[in-house]
Amino acid sequence: MIAKERDIAPDLYRQMMNIGAAARDAARKLARVDAESKTQALRAAANAMRRNMADILHANARDMEAGRRKQLTAALLDRLALDEQRVEATARGVESIADFDDPVGGVIAEWERPNGLRIQRVRVPLGVIGIIYESRPNVTADAGALCLKSGNAVILRGGTEAAHSNAAIHACLVEGLEEAGLPSGAVQRVPTQDREAVGILLREMGEYLDVIVPRGGKGLIARVQQDARVPVMGHLEGICHTYVHESADQEKARQVVVNAKMRRTGICGATETLLVDRSAPAGTLAALVDDLIAAGCEVRGDAAAQRSDPRVNAATDSDWGKEYLDAIIALRVVDDIDEAMTHIRRHGSGHTEAIIAEDAAAAERFLNELDSSILLHNASTQFADGGEFGMGAEIGIATGRIHARGPVGAEQLTSYKYVVRGDGQTRPR
Amino acid sequence: MIAKERDIAPDLYRQMMNIGAAARDAARKLARVDAESKTQALRAAANAMRRNMADILHANARDMEAGRRKQLTAALLDRLALDEQRVEATARGVESIADFDDPVGGVIAEWERPNGLRIQRVRVPLGVIGIIYESRPNVTADAGALCLKSGNAVILRGGTEAAHSNAAIHACLVEGLEEAGLPSGAVQRVPTQDREAVGILLREMGEYLDVIVPRGGKGLIARVQQDARVPVMGHLEGICHTYVHESADQEKARQVVVNAKMRRTGICGATETLLVDRSAPAGTLAALVDDLIAAGCEVRGDAAAQRSDPRVNAATDSDWGKEYLDAIIALRVVDDIDEAMTHIRRHGSGHTEAIIAEDAAAAERFLNELDSSILLHNASTQFADGGEFGMGAEIGIATGRIHARGPVGAEQLTSYKYVVRGDGQTRPR
Repeated sequence: MIAKERDIAPDLYRQMMNIGAAARDAARKLARVDAESKTQALRAAANAMRRNMADILHANARDMEAGRRKQLTAALLDRLALDEQRVEATARGVESIADFDDPVGGVIAEWERPNGLRIQRVRVPLGVIGIIYESRPNVTADAGALCLKSGNAVILRGGTEAAHSNAAIHACLVEGLEEAGLPSGAVQRVPTQDREAVGILLREMGEYLDVIVPRGGKGLIARVQQDARVPVMGHLEGICHTYVHESADQEKARQVVVNAKMRRTGICGATETLLVDRSAPAGTLAALVDDLIAAGCEVRGDAAAQRSDPRVNAATDSDWGKEYLDAIIALRVVDDIDEAMTHIRRHGSGHTEAIIAEDAAAAERFLNELDSSILLHNASTQFADGGEFGMGAEIGIATGRIHARGPVGAEQLTSYKYVVRGDGQTRPR
Repeated sequence: MIAKERDIAPDLYRQMMNIGAAARDAARKLARVDAESKTQALRAAANAMRRNMADILHANARDMEAGRRKQLTAALLDRLALDEQRVEATARGVESIADFDDPVGGVIAEWERPNGLRIQRVRVPLGVIGIIYESRPNVTADAGALCLKSGNAVILRGGTEAAHSNAAIHACLVEGLEEAGLPSGAVQRVPTQDREAVGILLREMGEYLDVIVPRGGKGLIARVQQDARVPVMGHLEGICHTYVHESADQEKARQVVVNAKMRRTGICGATETLLVDRSAPAGTLAALVDDLIAAGCEVRGDAAAQRSDPRVNAATDSDWGKEYLDAIIALRVVDDIDEAMTHIRRHGSGHTEAIIAEDAAAAERFLNELDSSILLHNASTQFADGGEFGMGAEIGIATGRIHARGPVGAEQLTSYKYVVRGDGQTRPR
């Protein structure tokens, strides 16, 4: 094995190829492992997290200290921080993944042909999944557990800020694999923070990787989509819209809008732009603005929105289609549903949009004519979540159009093969 | 719009971007078009092919003449050649695609959550599909029709050898679109044979293309996988194996093996390597070899195979895993099913493999433990075909693991979105 590009250190290249080969080997074994062994490994990993609580918290303290030295923002430090409760919640998350139905081997469809051939479409693992993610250390556990549940080997590459925490959590997953007699190559972590390791994952490991899942900010996603030579399951930003139609029930609208924006502002399903019909009943717009401001949200609106309340700041063009991930909302007053949908098509990211309306025909137009991965009627965009969809955990919300869209759970991490049973059939000329 | 890479001619760049923008625009319209309009466009296109028969044959004659000048092989010239029957068959193919169920808008799954949210997973088109293909002009009609049926816009880039034939057939598809009142941007053809146009499709049109489908030889696929910055639905070569287990019924084995190799040697589902158990009943191996040679097939075997019949030529290492696409077969005698599966894993391309066996347990091991896109028991590998699977036409056999595997028909050219209906639900903290 020699590095294909001269600027890659041969040792790093060799190390990455060894990780890839071990993952491929583990994936072959995992694909045929019984459901019980995978469940057992996940339960053992959760217990290892509890047993190694002190080590995990110690590792996290090192990351936090480094983060403070690097002057990470308070929001980033909060995402990075672990305590006993967060680790316990992560362990429970792994146990809940252990309890899901095993997707592998399930028959998705079956039919018989006139010539007697019986065809089954059978679920199989994808193979080896590479996950490149930032900050939150619990992703190490969630993503590792989901991949294992779906019979895939996984190569995890977390952010530098969480390196020690990720290593400590990863060690627990490996303990679980070993207790269940599964290959430790099934859940591997890139042990170096060398940035070039990501380049090797993206460009040089086509033989060993079946798909790359980037989970992080715009910069990461852009780099992955530019450099990857293997399929990418894209997770773009969530520029989610809530549109209040003139037929909206005012109470419903007020409850849903505040929840959609403020329940948690840092998740991809948080509403970033509110669109309100100009013809909505008097007081609707003012009530929505008042609720948001009372909940601690800055409102940046167009001229009509500003007229409704002097506390509304002026929105500029850069506010439309902006992912704040913060207690800020853009507000635009629109003429009708067509203008609302045009705005969403132009500025949205195809993630999640909601309409608040009592007029069923308007709601159906919105649900049918828009093409985001999730479209809701009279419900909060914060429901854009695999757990809320009943899929158990998720690895993220896919905004691409290939393979999976919306929440990516264990089932979305599988492929299929065809099994055809005959009795000597030959194909006529 | 300016070319991002200095070595691209600005005119070509602008032309390709215009094609992309028109396709994106058409895709938005097509996604919401009723099934009837698409059916009508396809029927009209088939009739246009009949009406313009003379033009199509004239265009094909120009391609054939150029092909003979370039000294294309007889096999390539045969794939290129059109006559009235082949054009009529192509028109009928388009009509049969018109008759399929429309996949768009179908509800794939639906469920209700405890909080009353009703969730539907609804089939939607992929968007804009780029298809890069070689030689056979009927692909222009098949691929164009399948993409239209599934609500996608398509950009077709056929091979230089078939340029005139492709243009003539494409003109008929456009006539069909126009008769049905659908945007002509829905089925576009790259009008230049400039090789750089492919580079622009692969690298520069991420904004306009949702997926690229390469359909051709190894060189094309390799280039696409190396250069593409958009998702690729890969169609690798078909290195298909037929394995005759010791428990095989000799008559079944003889019929299936000759059919699997010789029915058509030039398709990707043709068996390229035959594996036979050393412990198969006396005479089985000799009978298989005799049948193949009698059918006009060259047999290249290992030492044991050569001992069975002096007409068997010696196989070299390069014969294992070789896609002949010709009347040649590689033959290896194996110790048991494990050696057979190891051989297939090492040398196969993950396309299609068959086992001939009466021992049900052996057959189930083969079907379960191998991971090719299609696995058959007691049937010919030549069944690896969307039509034979009951999918109607196909765009090819996908050998990747992402999105679709096996035959790619109209349904496989779709994605989905989630439609969620509520009554004011908010997400609890």
